Amino acid sequence: MTDLIRLGVSISSDLLERFDKVIEAKGYVNRSEAIRDLIRNHITQTEWEGDEETVGVITIVYNHHIRELMDKLADLQHDHNTMINSALHVHLDHDNCLEAIVVRGRSSEIKKFADKLIGIKGVKHGQLSRTTSGKDI
Amino acid sequence: MTDLIRLGVSISSDLLERFDKVIEAKGYVNRSEAIRDLIRNHITQTEWEGDEETVGVITIVYNHHIRELMDKLADLQHDHNTMINSALHVHLDHDNCLEAIVVRGRSSEIKKFADKLIGIKGVKHGQLSRTTSGKDI
Amino acid sequence: MTDLIRLGVSISSDLLERFDKVIEAKGYVNRSEAIRDLIRNHITQTEWEGDEETVGVITIVYNHHIRELMDKLADLQHDHNTMINSALHVHLDHDNCLEAIVVRGRSSEIKKFADKLIGIKGVKHGQLSRTTSGKDI
Amino acid sequence: MTDLIRLGVSISSDLLERFDKVIEAKGYVNRSEAIRDLIRNHITQTEWEGDEETVGVITIVYNHHIRELMDKLADLQHDHNTMINSALHVHLDHDNCLEAIVVRGRSSEIKKFADKLIGIKGVKHGQLSRTTSGKDI
Repeated sequence: MTDLIRLGVSISSDLLERFDKVIEAKGYVNRSEAIRDLIRNHITQTEWEGDEETVGVITIVYNHHIRELMDKLADLQHDHNTMINSALHVHLDHDNCLEAIVVRGRSSEIKKFADKLIGIKGVKHGQLSRTTSGKDI
Repeated sequence: MTDLIRLGVSISSDLLERFDKVIEAKGYVNRSEAIRDLIRNHITQTEWEGDEETVGVITIVYNHHIRELMDKLADLQHDHNTMINSALHVHLDHDNCLEAIVVRGRSSEIKKFADKLIGIKGVKHGQLSRTTSGKDI
Repeated sequence: MTDLIRLGVSISSDLLERFDKVIEAKGYVNRSEAIRDLIRNHITQTEWEGDEETVGVITIVYNHHIRELMDKLADLQHDHNTMINSALHVHLDHDNCLEAIVVRGRSSEIKKFADKLIGIKGVKHGQLSRTTSGKDI
Repeated sequence: MTDLIRLGVSISSDLLERFDKVIEAKGYVNRSEAIRDLIRNHITQTEWEGDEETVGVITIVYNHHIRELMDKLADLQHDHNTMINSALHVHLDHDNCLEAIVVRGRSSEIKKFADKLIGIKGVKHGQLSRTTSGKDI
């Protein structure tokens, strides 16, 4: 943890009033936390636009009955084991599985790996959630 | 214009340092303006998630040589003339036109109109830019 | 699994050529799978725009040293236990944790729950990944 | 215009049924056009992720009463006149203006220009709509 600074932001009373309504509806208890969240989101987006070291969660949904699909997914993940931190496997129903895979690396490498996973035949839906290592923010 | 208020935001020195780097790269001259932009973006997003009165810009790219396409686009726009503020027509090349159409209304109605325009055969690409009336922000 | 149908799509040779290049770069082995992925993405987006029953993954990154944060996160998750399928906890470094929470429910309820989690003081970054139950797609 | 090809796509009857419902709701008159739109969207996204020559529309909303803002906006646009194709100016109300600026260039240059415009003090909201030149798609 680092020193806390008190930052002064000049803002019109109209804008502040509307912001207060929006963040109250979202369940924020104070403005500072809401503004820090906006700042951290903005930094995280920038990390992903550049090619910085970051953290992502790849979510895929697939039908585990499809022949050789489980093998292909396992092979591809093992080829990228240095990027993968861990994975959660959920049985959505008789046919469908969801996997949430936490990955770490340069944003370009994470994107490439996500593209490969999502492109495998039998993967119905895939998405890359662009989050952060939390370091220094 | 309304009264300017000085708002105090507590923030760690590490987070502030990273934020300063990001906004400097984007060309911001001061933090207050960058933070107000984040707040206004957040309010604008919320306007669009709810079904509030707002402003959008629909951009479409199409090949004007396609038979009856210009007529269909004109008809659909005239059916929605109360929503349309104005439009810009650009000749991209011998075949392709771009139209940027400024619309005003409830977000659900703007989305429906945009879907219709983009769905017309011959429209190659369409996108809805979700902006704001600027009122009170 | 249901019957496979052979669907005919008319497409210009130029467009097809560019599409082939794009999907080859993404690692797709055939066009049908790439087109089915585009279709399934589109359906999934529509599920989330409407208020249908669906599946999401909420990712949060937080500093577990912050007083009472772990308790607040646990309390909020227990209040929504009927929505939560399971969760993965990752230790990113000495301070930071990542949690990936798989939730099921109407899209509006998932969004509300995600907003609450992300709004808790101490949660540095949060994101909702909008996926699907995989049913019928 | 190039040759039309008939492309065969194998798809399950369940998936096709759901797709038909979605595209009917969006006003599409046939599946081929809906699938071509998905393909063209995908290609356009890829153009923007790479650093290809493309077309964008920058939308800004600002209060024209702010001192020197109009001059700053005009100066910045003139410095980028080779990128700018044309612009539409809309008077939203007594205070607020919207400008939709059609730009052409490499995606990285368009993004940089958009960041600069949006970062100017007095610009309330800005957005970059990522469209296409329409060439070969």
